[in-house]
Amino acid sequence: MSNATPLPAAATTPLVVQTVAALKDAVRGRLEESAVSGSVRRLALVPTMGALHEGHARLVRTAAAENDVVVVTIFVNELQFNDREDFLRYPRTLEADVELLAGAGADLVFAPEAAEVYPDGPPLVKLDCGRLGERFEGKARPGHFDGMLAVVSKLLHYGQPPLSTAVPVTYRAYFGQKDAQQLAIIRRMVADLNYDVDIRSVPIVRSPEGLALSSRNRFLSAEEAEAALVLSRALFLLKRRADAGEPLHIEDAEAMIASQPLAKLDYFEVVDPRTLEPLAFNCPETPLTGEALALVAARVGAVRLIDNMPLGR
Amino acid sequence: MSNATPLPAAATTPLVVQTVAALKDAVRGRLEESAVSGSVRRLALVPTMGALHEGHARLVRTAAAENDVVVVTIFVNELQFNDREDFLRYPRTLEADVELLAGAGADLVFAPEAAEVYPDGPPLVKLDCGRLGERFEGKARPGHFDGMLAVVSKLLHYGQPPLSTAVPVTYRAYFGQKDAQQLAIIRRMVADLNYDVDIRSVPIVRSPEGLALSSRNRFLSAEEAEAALVLSRALFLLKRRADAGEPLHIEDAEAMIASQPLAKLDYFEVVDPRTLEPLAFNCPETPLTGEALALVAARVGAVRLIDNMPLGR
Repeated sequence: MSNATPLPAAATTPLVVQTVAALKDAVRGRLEESAVSGSVRRLALVPTMGALHEGHARLVRTAAAENDVVVVTIFVNELQFNDREDFLRYPRTLEADVELLAGAGADLVFAPEAAEVYPDGPPLVKLDCGRLGERFEGKARPGHFDGMLAVVSKLLHYGQPPLSTAVPVTYRAYFGQKDAQQLAIIRRMVADLNYDVDIRSVPIVRSPEGLALSSRNRFLSAEEAEAALVLSRALFLLKRRADAGEPLHIEDAEAMIASQPLAKLDYFEVVDPRTLEPLAFNCPETPLTGEALALVAARVGAVRLIDNMPLGR
Repeated sequence: MSNATPLPAAATTPLVVQTVAALKDAVRGRLEESAVSGSVRRLALVPTMGALHEGHARLVRTAAAENDVVVVTIFVNELQFNDREDFLRYPRTLEADVELLAGAGADLVFAPEAAEVYPDGPPLVKLDCGRLGERFEGKARPGHFDGMLAVVSKLLHYGQPPLSTAVPVTYRAYFGQKDAQQLAIIRRMVADLNYDVDIRSVPIVRSPEGLALSSRNRFLSAEEAEAALVLSRALFLLKRRADAGEPLHIEDAEAMIASQPLAKLDYFEVVDPRTLEPLAFNCPETPLTGEALALVAARVGAVRLIDNMPLGR
C-alpha cells in the first residue's frame, strides 16, 4: 500500500448532489465511464452524518482503495436523535467535510435535505430491531437504533447501482467499527431483509495513546483526555489475554476503570458480535473460545464515551 | 390485446428453482439472453402463496404482456398466519400451479423452502406497519401484515435484477387489487424504504355475476354463493353513484348487505386508498371528490369474504 511518489495524489473535489435523481444519474455515469467491456465495476457507499474526522477519512480511503466509485452520504437524521436539542446542536460542517473527502478519494457526495429523504414525513412502515437495540447504547438512547435503521434502509437503496446501469457491478457499504452495536444491527437488517449489498467494516482509529477517535473528544479537558485512556487500556488488557489464550478475568478490566476517579462506568460487557447477547463467563478460569466483542461505555467528566475491541478469532 | 390465431401460444413450462442463488443466476441469464444492444430489458416479479386461480393467472398474464422476463414466487409464509393450524391447512398445489403458470407466460418459478427464506429463524429486525395494519383485515388477523412485510421485503430483493447483470433493466412487481390493504401497505413500505421497484396492481377478477374470485369461494354452497353477490352489488352501487357525481349515501350499501340474511357484515368503509384512513362523509349530500376506496368484509355462512372497489378519479 506504500506509494513511491512523495507528493499526495491531486485531490479532486467530489461532485455534491442533493437529490436522489441526481445521485442515481451521477452514479450510473461514473460506473459506465471508462468501464472496460466485460469487467466488473465496484461501487462503494459510505453513510455519515458529516462533522467528519480522521476516523471517517480512514473509512473513505479504505472504500476508495477497494472500489472504483465511492459515494459518501452526509445527512443528519433527526429520527435517530431522541433529544431535539441534541439534533439542532449537531455540527453541520459541509464545506470542511467536502475538503476532507476530496483528500480521501470520494467521487460523489450525497447531501440531501430532510424533505428529500422524508417527503411524506416520518415513515409509516417502521423498522424495529427489538432486543438488538434495547441494551447498551439503545438503553442510553431509546429509539435511536430504529431511527438509524429508518435512514440506513433508505440510503442503501439510494446508493445501490441504478437498474439502468449497463455494466455489471459490485456494491459495498462501509461502516466504522467504533459504533459496534450500530454495525451489528445494520448487518442483521441486511441479512433479514436480504439487501444485495456487502457490508464492510473498518477498524477504530486511535490516538497514539490509544483513545478511540470521536467528534466528542474535543469536549474533553487535557486531564479528562488522559483519564479517558483507561477505557482502551482495559480493552487492550482483555485483548492480550484473549490473544495469549488465557482466561479473560473481565473483573480486572472493570476494576481498572473503577480505579480512575474521573471515569464513571456505564457498561462493560463481552458479547457475541452478531447477536450482542452477553457471553457467559461463569467459569473465570476458562479461556475465550470463538469470536467475542468487548464493549465499554463510560462518562468521563461530562462527556459520554464508547469504545470496543474484537476478541478471539 | 386480441389474438388472430385461435390456437393458444405453445405453453413453455417455466424453470422451477428453490434457492436464491439459482434464482439470481437464472434471472441474469434470461435478462442477458437475446438482449439487443442498448435496449432495456423488463423484469417482473409476481409474489404468490400458490394455490393459484384465474385471478393469479390474470396477474401473470398482465406481467407477461408488459415485461420480457416474468418470475413468479410461490411461498407459504408462516409468519403471516396468526393461526398455525390455518398455515398447515393452506393448500400446496405446486404441480397444478406450475401448469397454470406455463399457460399464463411465467418464465421462472421461485419455490423455496422456509429454511432458504429464514435461514436464521424468524427475523430479528422486523417491519412494523403500525396504524396501516391495525384495522380491517389486520384487526381480524393480528400480526398478519407485519408478517407479510417480512417476506415481501425479502422477495423484492431476491427478485431484483442481479448486480452482475450487464444490461440495463426495469423492475416491476405485480399484486392483485383484491388484497387492497396488503397492496396499500406494500406501496407504503416501498416508498418508506425506497425500494427501486415499480409496484403495479391488477384489477379484481370477478365471476360473470360479480363475485370476486377467491380460493375460499370453493367453500360456499350454491345458496351462499348467490347470497355473497350482495357484497359486489353494494360496491357497484357506490361506484355508479361516484361515476355519476352523486352523493354516495354509504348507508344504502350497508342496508343492502344487512338485508341479506346469510351475510354477516364485518366492516364496510370508504377510505383514502393510500393511508386507509376512513374518509369523512359527514354531509351525506356531498358527492365524492378525489380518489377513494370502498372496502367490505363479511361472513357468508362459515366463509369470510373480502371485496373492494376504487371510487372516483
